Amino acid sequence: MTEIRKNFGSDNVGPAHPQVVDAMLEANRGAVASYGGDPWTARLEGLVREIFQTETTTFPVATGTAANALALSALVRPFGAIVCDEVAHIMNDEAGAPEFFSGGAKLLTLPSPDGRLDPAALQAALARRRISGVHQSPVEAISLTQATEWGTCYPTAQVEALADVARENRLHVHMDGARFANAVSFLGATPAAVTWKAGVDVLSLGATKNGAMAAEAVVFFNRDLAREFAQRRKRAGHLWSKQRFLSAQLTGYLQGGLWLENAGRANAAAARLSQGLAALPGAELVQPTEANEVFVLLPEPLVLRLEAAGYGFYRWASRPEQGGFVVRLVCAFDTVEADVDALLETIRQAE
Amino acid sequence: MTEIRKNFGSDNVGPAHPQVVDAMLEANRGAVASYGGDPWTARLEGLVREIFQTETTTFPVATGTAANALALSALVRPFGAIVCDEVAHIMNDEAGAPEFFSGGAKLLTLPSPDGRLDPAALQAALARRRISGVHQSPVEAISLTQATEWGTCYPTAQVEALADVARENRLHVHMDGARFANAVSFLGATPAAVTWKAGVDVLSLGATKNGAMAAEAVVFFNRDLAREFAQRRKRAGHLWSKQRFLSAQLTGYLQGGLWLENAGRANAAAARLSQGLAALPGAELVQPTEANEVFVLLPEPLVLRLEAAGYGFYRWASRPEQGGFVVRLVCAFDTVEADVDALLETIRQAE
Amino acid sequence: MTEIRKNFGSDNVGPAHPQVVDAMLEANRGAVASYGGDPWTARLEGLVREIFQTETTTFPVATGTAANALALSALVRPFGAIVCDEVAHIMNDEAGAPEFFSGGAKLLTLPSPDGRLDPAALQAALARRRISGVHQSPVEAISLTQATEWGTCYPTAQVEALADVARENRLHVHMDGARFANAVSFLGATPAAVTWKAGVDVLSLGATKNGAMAAEAVVFFNRDLAREFAQRRKRAGHLWSKQRFLSAQLTGYLQGGLWLENAGRANAAAARLSQGLAALPGAELVQPTEANEVFVLLPEPLVLRLEAAGYGFYRWASRPEQGGFVVRLVCAFDTVEADVDALLETIRQAE
Amino acid sequence: MTEIRKNFGSDNVGPAHPQVVDAMLEANRGAVASYGGDPWTARLEGLVREIFQTETTTFPVATGTAANALALSALVRPFGAIVCDEVAHIMNDEAGAPEFFSGGAKLLTLPSPDGRLDPAALQAALARRRISGVHQSPVEAISLTQATEWGTCYPTAQVEALADVARENRLHVHMDGARFANAVSFLGATPAAVTWKAGVDVLSLGATKNGAMAAEAVVFFNRDLAREFAQRRKRAGHLWSKQRFLSAQLTGYLQGGLWLENAGRANAAAARLSQGLAALPGAELVQPTEANEVFVLLPEPLVLRLEAAGYGFYRWASRPEQGGFVVRLVCAFDTVEADVDALLETIRQAE
Repeated sequence: MTEIRKNFGSDNVGPAHPQVVDAMLEANRGAVASYGGDPWTARLEGLVREIFQTETTTFPVATGTAANALALSALVRPFGAIVCDEVAHIMNDEAGAPEFFSGGAKLLTLPSPDGRLDPAALQAALARRRISGVHQSPVEAISLTQATEWGTCYPTAQVEALADVARENRLHVHMDGARFANAVSFLGATPAAVTWKAGVDVLSLGATKNGAMAAEAVVFFNRDLAREFAQRRKRAGHLWSKQRFLSAQLTGYLQGGLWLENAGRANAAAARLSQGLAALPGAELVQPTEANEVFVLLPEPLVLRLEAAGYGFYRWASRPEQGGFVVRLVCAFDTVEADVDALLETIRQAE
Repeated sequence: MTEIRKNFGSDNVGPAHPQVVDAMLEANRGAVASYGGDPWTARLEGLVREIFQTETTTFPVATGTAANALALSALVRPFGAIVCDEVAHIMNDEAGAPEFFSGGAKLLTLPSPDGRLDPAALQAALARRRISGVHQSPVEAISLTQATEWGTCYPTAQVEALADVARENRLHVHMDGARFANAVSFLGATPAAVTWKAGVDVLSLGATKNGAMAAEAVVFFNRDLAREFAQRRKRAGHLWSKQRFLSAQLTGYLQGGLWLENAGRANAAAARLSQGLAALPGAELVQPTEANEVFVLLPEPLVLRLEAAGYGFYRWASRPEQGGFVVRLVCAFDTVEADVDALLETIRQAE
Repeated sequence: MTEIRKNFGSDNVGPAHPQVVDAMLEANRGAVASYGGDPWTARLEGLVREIFQTETTTFPVATGTAANALALSALVRPFGAIVCDEVAHIMNDEAGAPEFFSGGAKLLTLPSPDGRLDPAALQAALARRRISGVHQSPVEAISLTQATEWGTCYPTAQVEALADVARENRLHVHMDGARFANAVSFLGATPAAVTWKAGVDVLSLGATKNGAMAAEAVVFFNRDLAREFAQRRKRAGHLWSKQRFLSAQLTGYLQGGLWLENAGRANAAAARLSQGLAALPGAELVQPTEANEVFVLLPEPLVLRLEAAGYGFYRWASRPEQGGFVVRLVCAFDTVEADVDALLETIRQAE
Repeated sequence: MTEIRKNFGSDNVGPAHPQVVDAMLEANRGAVASYGGDPWTARLEGLVREIFQTETTTFPVATGTAANALALSALVRPFGAIVCDEVAHIMNDEAGAPEFFSGGAKLLTLPSPDGRLDPAALQAALARRRISGVHQSPVEAISLTQATEWGTCYPTAQVEALADVARENRLHVHMDGARFANAVSFLGATPAAVTWKAGVDVLSLGATKNGAMAAEAVVFFNRDLAREFAQRRKRAGHLWSKQRFLSAQLTGYLQGGLWLENAGRANAAAARLSQGLAALPGAELVQPTEANEVFVLLPEPLVLRLEAAGYGFYRWASRPEQGGFVVRLVCAFDTVEADVDALLETIRQAE
């Protein structure tokens, strides 16, 4: 009998998926060329092209922060600026990595109710920006998070509209897809439709949170932008000598649609949790649950009781005026119905 | 007869004051030790200590951007953050210099109606900031602009209240004093009262806009923070071999109260302009005129007519919904009543 | 029957050791705290302390370049300098990572016949350095490579002598131990004796080349120097969310002495190869073979024939005046006698 | 009667030339556009083009370190490398500025007897450099110092030969001309012949050491390389708001050949000093005196006696085996025969 999982802290607290592990084990044989000259890396590019139905240039790295910061450093100059949503991971949770990797570029944020940049707000902000000669950092890129930090997803049309604004203003478009699989699964769109067909230049394609040990792929659709990437990756210590073990994680992850299956399971668990919470009098959802994260306002005594019961989650924001906290509950590919139901039951009994 | 001055674009469009020039000429004699080992540099430190009535460590540099960015790099680590007002010069007009000099630190902004950080808003923002381990850039400093970019001044009590919040949160306090003289003149406070006595660690003391050719002094009241400054200044190319010519500008500027006299004249001209505009039906002041800058909403046809008449000023913000622009009109130490009156008369006739 | 291994290109072309893989699989269970709050990370610190017989602060990362560059960034300021041997990996093979991570520090090199810094040469170079105020980058650290890039090892007494020079000049001491196990195995010294007891402040303890998939440990003996490391690691994208998979590789590697066993095997294979080559008329060893690398001058036709026969190795240096190339042949923990003998036999037949 | 000048420490210990001062005073009138939109800046470009007989893009800055570091940052990427002579100012006397401004590029040095890069040695070093993929910093530029740090000058043919090697290896060519006037004066070549006609892409054209207060011009002959310069200069705090005062120094300096006249005087004084020293038994010239610097080996007692007599100079290198020091004696445009003769007489009497 499996233990009930009480850790809803993040989708990075869990193990790797067996199919990913098997791919790594399969790669653990014999001597192969190092630094990416191995068959798994070649296979990875093939898989990515198949999935996105276009030519790509793909670089595997071990962490999402590395993927994002390296990708952004390919899009802006050291004196440039990047616009993102005020809750973006690149702004709030990467310890200044984009500034470090870019050599000092500036992140400018726009507020939103749900973590999604709004095309009209973006256009207005760009137009409002006072520019006089060389004194201001020119905006050179935007970065979208798909799914967002609030667990919402950009509809394809919104990505397109944002990319249109970007193109009119000569900005590059980055997509932080740490939870890209969850977004694709929710949207029911093709991977191509929400990325390059919509105008995305480069995607950080996450795997760690959805079944890998430590693997993300930086996928350039605008391949011209990739020309310095290999050198920047090496200089940042993100080129693995035994790269096969990164690439194999990603091939195992992408092979046969595992990535979308896993995301589908995580999303379904989150949806079940969200619906269960919506039915409880003491809980109030503060965001629609679209991907695999649930943001819910809970009264302080309940939060304390859940913590005492061994449940793991983030207190996302304090809401003293409402007597509680917004907490974040994250489901992963290995969260099962019984885990969700046990949590809901614990809440019900606590109320 | 002197020509009427029509350039209200900035307080940096004008010449240097004769007393500053004389000091430079007086320094232009004989061989002296380079890199700051000259008598004028020694004299400068003495003058600064006299004016601020405390021990200081002072470094002259040629530009305000250098002064600010070097000062900030002494206060935060490359992975730290600085809080400033959303209209701060360091955020909007220095092309990313603070990020460059600090090695990638982040500027975080707070909105305000008048360019002044609010102590309660600062405290709330710091408290609201989600911090979990090493993922967020720790706030390590605040930066106040005195006078602000909106031409307003921080009352001494507000500087004290902000520094209190800073101290409670273990933040250093920087003051961007590109127009410090104008603020001191307006406030009628002592230089000590609005800086170190209120809790300021380091001041960028401007002179260029108020009578110098190109000279600013970085004044450390918290002298421990100055320990790497000399090396950082050299590395940034801001150590002059013939430093006497920087220091002499500053001694000429500070000697005998010239700096406050000049600021008083600029402020008086701005006040006269502001009052004159307030009396005109088509003009609407959008900020109180405290230092030497006037921000006024003018209808578009009037703006065009002034430009056609050869007047120089910045269109600060477009206000299409009100049919015009907020324009910035800046007075300097050499703006005379006749210049102001001629501008007002031109506006009156244009309406 | 196993295939004969012909790839002597590097010790990073091979697979991971089964004991390392088993440790990773064992770690692949259940939900644990992310970002290092897992049991394997705690166990790793314990193991490191046991092996080095002292208090340590240890950070696992995935690559040697990250380990070195992050470690160095803890030892020097952005305007400082590091002295290393002219063939050091940090100088020649890390694409500028030390400069990047340190914010611009300078690497200064000293020549040597065998990749080892000489204490007297170091002292002389430091004494010779013209220093006048703030114009020169102060040397703040030295970096030793153990085993060196020429496959030689620093005797304990030489490490001590270098650290003495460092201490007298107030320099920190870094050891690049990408092949530390090979050096310890060769020297027959304790890990403590060649590191902190000799005066080393921080060690990059390699595992990737000797049995891991992608894992190195940055081990601080001078724990004060570790205080910013966690933030710098995160900012560089080198903090794994699922850190257990890094730590488990290292515990698997260090557990029960596997690291030294593996190194012993690699060294033995290299020694066998070296002795075999020494006996051949056409080959000339250019360095003593102490660790697991053999540097041998081979005539060009032989080099071509080996390459044609499918052998993998680096042409390290061209020696046209001697009609050949210095090639580097690297043995790893899984290089067996048969592999070595087959290579020797191929050479014998080719001559 | 003028005082005898005893300070031979550097050509930056003296005052500005009256013609430079007059140009500054002449510029100190009325309101003009800031940030380079002034007539003096326009005039400067015209003068530079006239002197170099070609199209140029010119940026005035206040210091040589800024000029060099900004120029180099236009030539190499953050992960690139620059080759220079081992005694180059950019390597030894700029506190890491090139690394800082370039975002971490590497300086690689070649030894020489006289401060001049040798074309054959450069070619050999580039050919010898082991390059395997992305691990090494690609050399992207060379930097020549004209006149060199040893007071020697590159003959035109040597600049051409170096630029040929550069072109074959796709490297850009920078010339550090802090003492460019002295070199041109010595060589008797046209400014064009030793720069763009020989293959130089960008020149740091010094003035501070030869008559200005604080002014250097970065002159791009390869104007494509200038495209990011204005933004980089602003970001580094090196854009003056009152740029007329920089430009006027330079127009005063270049106008009517003053720059070459001044250099001629400094060179002549150095030649006189050099010849005088050569005739003394205790002194040994260690470099030919070509520009305005004399490097001479003096016995220690003599060095002490000169210092005691109030003479200023640098002890450039200690030569204990020869019982003395190499000292550097620098003449400037305002060093007169009487100054030189007094020094020689002091030495004669001391011997």
